[in-house]
Amino acid sequence: MGLDFGSTASKGVVLKDGKEIVCTAIITSGTGTSGPERVKEKLLKESNLLESDMEAVVVTGYGRMTYQGAKKQISELSCHAKGVHFLVPDVGTVIDIGGQDIKALLLDKNGNLSNFVMNDKCAAGTGRFLDVMAGVLETEVSMLGEISMMSKAPVNISSTCTVFAESEVISHLSAGVNKEDIIAGIHISVAGRVAALAKRVGIKDKVVMVGGVAKNIGVVKAMEDALGKNIEVPKLAQLTGALGAALFAFEALNK
Amino acid sequence: MGLDFGSTASKGVVLKDGKEIVCTAIITSGTGTSGPERVKEKLLKESNLLESDMEAVVVTGYGRMTYQGAKKQISELSCHAKGVHFLVPDVGTVIDIGGQDIKALLLDKNGNLSNFVMNDKCAAGTGRFLDVMAGVLETEVSMLGEISMMSKAPVNISSTCTVFAESEVISHLSAGVNKEDIIAGIHISVAGRVAALAKRVGIKDKVVMVGGVAKNIGVVKAMEDALGKNIEVPKLAQLTGALGAALFAFEALNK
Ligand code: SF4
Repeated sequence: MGLDFGSTASKGVVLKDGKEIVCTAIITSGTGTSGPERVKEKLLKESNLLESDMEAVVVTGYGRMTYQGAKKQISELSCHAKGVHFLVPDVGTVIDIGGQDIKALLLDKNGNLSNFVMNDKCAAGTGRFLDVMAGVLETEVSMLGEISMMSKAPVNISSTCTVFAESEVISHLSAGVNKEDIIAGIHISVAGRVAALAKRVGIKDKVVMVGGVAKNIGVVKAMEDALGKNIEVPKLAQLTGALGAALFAFEALNK
Repeated sequence: MGLDFGSTASKGVVLKDGKEIVCTAIITSGTGTSGPERVKEKLLKESNLLESDMEAVVVTGYGRMTYQGAKKQISELSCHAKGVHFLVPDVGTVIDIGGQDIKALLLDKNGNLSNFVMNDKCAAGTGRFLDVMAGVLETEVSMLGEISMMSKAPVNISSTCTVFAESEVISHLSAGVNKEDIIAGIHISVAGRVAALAKRVGIKDKVVMVGGVAKNIGVVKAMEDALGKNIEVPKLAQLTGALGAALFAFEALNK
């Protein structure tokens, strides 16, 4: 079993023989809440297994140190790398846009982390940036991707800073610009910011996007334009940390 | 006459013989509005002078290029340096916190600019940061300084980013922390950010603070703590750009 206790969600994967994903679960409350316990219960219930059936548990994420009963705690970055490599064996660069940070990982052929860059000090380009903009636009953040696909003339957002960009969005709104064009401009702004960070770590085929923001098709398309490359978003994009933890658990048993 | 057309205010100074400040005016609307015309009219009216009495007009600030009829346009930084040096002849470092940017200037003995650093890309530490926090705290931004003086135990704000710091302030509020302690923590956060920038240009006695945020006594005190130095805030702190422009106008006549 691999568990990933983040700041806003708890995720888990049950893996059989280091190969087969038996069950996955996501609870949208993170460390410091009941999320960690609930995700474990959910996994056991849905897989019809007992805690004693788990041969090894590895835990990752921001809340990994508060959890008792794991065989190992392993850093998020290593788990993400391993999880993504399992899903997309020929991955080179992983771009992970979370709610409050951006990470770019460079992987070697075996899926080991060879370099990474991270921004967790500035909200620009993160999920939080999109939350702020969705608030101003009075739109659900989950709708942004779809709406932006209708844009024919994305606006230019010149400020990177969330606060200054918010003012620009308000000006565009009061000038009567279409929401789809504003949202498309917002996605281009996020992509510019994230692409700059990713280029610092290196862009190596295949490029894979994970993290909550990878569900936003508008950001993914804007990232493809910014990098001039196709980007793959695995179906289990939110679960790569927990999956990597489960793979480490399997490895730990076999050492 | 020196005029300073900023993004949020228009300011002017009438100077006699390069020495005597005859009249000053501030209109709280900037370039692109009627502010520039109004500040000029106000200066002439209050000084009982005619436009033809002005021997030379120099204009500075963001809107300087849109103004017709000036002898010269001179950059803000040079005008600020000159204006501050006129008010505080032994100034070394000038720290200017505006509504949307932070500047730190290093001056030589003659009041000429020898180096500067500027941040206009990030709202952290600027007047805008304080505006956002005042909004969350439902407090007038002009009251922040005074309220913070009552604090006995300032909170720690760990994020520099405006967006993340705003979340911290909201948490403190919902945990029932006193407003004065939260505001004092906000001022310490601004001071930390600004002091780091100022150190990059160099801290040389005397240290002078100008710009809108210099009116906030809480930020000034927190800056003194952060730098371990006394800071002087000239009475005409908002007018140093216009004053410098007027000094340049006088110089231009005498060359
Ligand atoms: S640029 Fe804006 S979003 Fe980034 S740290 Fe500064 S205030 Fe925060």
